[in-house]
Amino acid sequence: MANPTQTKAEKTAITPTRTEDYPEWYQQVVKAADLAENSPVRGCMVIKPWGYAIWENIQRILDGMFKDTGHVNAYFPLFIPKSFLEKEAEHVDGFAKECAVVTHHRLEVGPNGGLVPAGELEEPLVVRPTSETIIGAMFAQWVQSYRDLPLLVNQWANVVRWELRTRLFLRTTEFLWQEGHTCHANAEEAMEETKKMLEVYSVFAREVMAVPVIPGEKTAGERFPGAVSTFTIEAMMQDRKALQAGTSHFLGQNFAKAQDIKYQSKGGTLEHCWTTSWGVSTRLIGALIMTHSDDDGLVLPPRLAPKHVVIVPIWRKDDELEAVLAYCKKLEAELKTQKYADEKVRVMIDARDLNGGERTWDQIKKGVPVRLEVGPRDMAKDSVFMGRRDKGPKEKVSMTREEIVAGIGGILEEIQANLYQRALAYREAATVRIDSVDAFKAYFADEGGGFAMAFAADDPSYAELLKELKVTARCIPLADNEETGACIFTGRPDQKRIVFARAY
Amino acid sequence: MANPTQTKAEKTAITPTRTEDYPEWYQQVVKAADLAENSPVRGCMVIKPWGYAIWENIQRILDGMFKDTGHVNAYFPLFIPKSFLEKEAEHVDGFAKECAVVTHHRLEVGPNGGLVPAGELEEPLVVRPTSETIIGAMFAQWVQSYRDLPLLVNQWANVVRWELRTRLFLRTTEFLWQEGHTCHANAEEAMEETKKMLEVYSVFAREVMAVPVIPGEKTAGERFPGAVSTFTIEAMMQDRKALQAGTSHFLGQNFAKAQDIKYQSKGGTLEHCWTTSWGVSTRLIGALIMTHSDDDGLVLPPRLAPKHVVIVPIWRKDDELEAVLAYCKKLEAELKTQKYADEKVRVMIDARDLNGGERTWDQIKKGVPVRLEVGPRDMAKDSVFMGRRDKGPKEKVSMTREEIVAGIGGILEEIQANLYQRALAYREAATVRIDSVDAFKAYFADEGGGFAMAFAADDPSYAELLKELKVTARCIPLADNEETGACIFTGRPDQKRIVFARAY
Repeated sequence: MANPTQTKAEKTAITPTRTEDYPEWYQQVVKAADLAENSPVRGCMVIKPWGYAIWENIQRILDGMFKDTGHVNAYFPLFIPKSFLEKEAEHVDGFAKECAVVTHHRLEVGPNGGLVPAGELEEPLVVRPTSETIIGAMFAQWVQSYRDLPLLVNQWANVVRWELRTRLFLRTTEFLWQEGHTCHANAEEAMEETKKMLEVYSVFAREVMAVPVIPGEKTAGERFPGAVSTFTIEAMMQDRKALQAGTSHFLGQNFAKAQDIKYQSKGGTLEHCWTTSWGVSTRLIGALIMTHSDDDGLVLPPRLAPKHVVIVPIWRKDDELEAVLAYCKKLEAELKTQKYADEKVRVMIDARDLNGGERTWDQIKKGVPVRLEVGPRDMAKDSVFMGRRDKGPKEKVSMTREEIVAGIGGILEEIQANLYQRALAYREAATVRIDSVDAFKAYFADEGGGFAMAFAADDPSYAELLKELKVTARCIPLADNEETGACIFTGRPDQKRIVFARAY
Repeated sequence: MANPTQTKAEKTAITPTRTEDYPEWYQQVVKAADLAENSPVRGCMVIKPWGYAIWENIQRILDGMFKDTGHVNAYFPLFIPKSFLEKEAEHVDGFAKECAVVTHHRLEVGPNGGLVPAGELEEPLVVRPTSETIIGAMFAQWVQSYRDLPLLVNQWANVVRWELRTRLFLRTTEFLWQEGHTCHANAEEAMEETKKMLEVYSVFAREVMAVPVIPGEKTAGERFPGAVSTFTIEAMMQDRKALQAGTSHFLGQNFAKAQDIKYQSKGGTLEHCWTTSWGVSTRLIGALIMTHSDDDGLVLPPRLAPKHVVIVPIWRKDDELEAVLAYCKKLEAELKTQKYADEKVRVMIDARDLNGGERTWDQIKKGVPVRLEVGPRDMAKDSVFMGRRDKGPKEKVSMTREEIVAGIGGILEEIQANLYQRALAYREAATVRIDSVDAFKAYFADEGGGFAMAFAADDPSYAELLKELKVTARCIPLADNEETGACIFTGRPDQKRIVFARAY
């Protein structure tokens, strides 16, 4: 976060800075932190080890939260028969348009010596853009009686949506995600599940990602294709745009009817189930980057950092290296005995054959929360220089070995809390209540604006105006949204406030 | 394992028994344990929660072993451009034949109202059958200098190989796996890595899966397409057939040359790297099932069991339920404080609205290692009836609550060790040394035979005979294979023993 109006005079590790060119700054942060890169396959990214390690942390922690709320994992096919997509009309409209279609099951040597597709399939297969239809077909077999309900299943998988304009983590043709799919005996339970998972996502965003989010309901125009209602968590990036960080859908009986998911009730009647689905994806990493990073590169919240601490040994002469390295290894072992957020502190030593400054800056760009520099003189004093990634790169303090070992858990807690508070303050400073159309237009003029909270009807009649301003209705917040007023666009009375913003 | 010649008179939970119809017994075990089922997509399976939880345990433990040996995870695209497959001729011959080919990126409403493929791609994409080619293309960019080596990367992913005849877990069009890919500066290091990972797989098979395996090298005819040498671990199933449970390939410079993976050496010259790849898949679950299960269903080694212990409360009258359940919950909490193999003991209570016998048999078929039955009379004595899955279903012992809580870790260790010893004894009983072609033919006559260890040349000249007998060379064992002799097929002197068997 830091100060986005940082003056040019100060040299930064990332060029351009956020204020100079935000989209390009984003690409450069991803590159400098070695998180991911474009692959030779159009629209598909390669998630590099440092980026994938963040995803592994996201997965591990979220998976634990899903299991704690009674869910089990399963795995369903990558392919969906075309006919499945023809069943739920609205859903298909939303997904069939741009998807990868498998039409052949063989490559043969063609007339020019190159390989050509052969073995045409009777029915084309689509690479899953989401699994509602195939999972629904299985649920229809699994659910027979009220005793089989609720059915609470999650899948970790790759999905494909053919995208024309892609951006690493934010929008890629293939991405990784989890999709929860559940079946219930009645509407109340299904709605309770929908909201419970929204809450899981909110807690995860706030407490683990240190990203403040607004949980709310999507307006009709922004709903998931085929859903009765869609809930979302919306976060603000440092360009004041919104990013949808997770969604939870109440599907009513729409999918159950399209897919014939029925159960025999206690009374013996045959009823359609009520279903939900909910998901988050590798897009979360984009949200993470754009919420916390600064003009020196990636800033990682400790809960998700692949390494909490990097020890950077500093040496001038070769004969110093051995002793400094031995000291660092001892320190590493001691730090690893400590705990943070119920996990062992994750420590690495960066002793690559580069000068100390290069290594330090590399680790700053990678966002490691705590850096410990150790040279021969520090070693002699049994102390280290400690730098925190949430502070300026030159703001270092000397600490004794004992102090840092005993204090590391607390320092990481402080950084985690600090990142959240900074992001929250940023969002609050860029959120306004707006009570007239003119003020609304003025707020979003000239690429300006942030989150505008305005009384508004869930109504398509002012969609054109939003389109002109390149603004979308992000959500109707669930919390602190009791007050009602007249819609600033239509004048209809008794409307709640909706969050409007430009969005990713 | 148990006794495969169990008499028909004894009623078994699985029909048919292993001796009656082994392939059908396998399908029924998978079904009774609710591990997986066929999906509406030809050749693709759905891995159900109990089966997927076994895969999660496999993943977690193997992943830890990979990280302990210095590997990091990353993620590469699902799709491979056709042109990539045209680069490495031998590799393509092996994989291009049967694969899913994506030719379009859209579905449109066609003349009959149904959806038809549209948006033809300029270059078809193949759904990865394995990722050597795409990962190689990335490595060519990542590796520049000797400082970048070794590069030790692993990927957990789904892959697709179009299969005509499929069988749950053993051979499916889509399956889950991990693929390790590494780059090295010289042949020695690459070979060391190849063998190190074979050893990781061997240790995992023996200690975690309780499956005895023979690590060895594949003969030329059984090599991975494009590899210089392929190593394998071979296990024996209860029908005495071999199952290849994991492979590790030394790729020499073949892929590095095809993909231009070069590094600048310390001396300043530009050299091609030496690469390896290694993988195991959801097929391991097939190996697990066919090694340990018996005519009453799945038998799980404790290390991989989703639950170590199931508590089955028994009650006659409704007013007994509450007290019995409270007792079981207390017992569950106490057991969960215990450890087995450095992890918390995994316990569940099965209090479904079914009679006690049904629940007990269901858990036997699911392979839970330890069952604890608790009725009102046991409760009064502060004791439980304990049944172990490696023993007969009626062999139960009464233990006090204190005894079972204190002893659970040891019981699980005993079961794990017992399963391994049983499987090893089975394999040893079905392994023979054979020293003539006639004895070889006789051994494999009439669907008989097991593992035949014969002196044999790595030579295609006797391939026809093997084909007739439906036998393959499984591997040239790495251990205890110093003695040499004349090839029983060709008479060539100084040959090592090769393991021959029918195989999955």
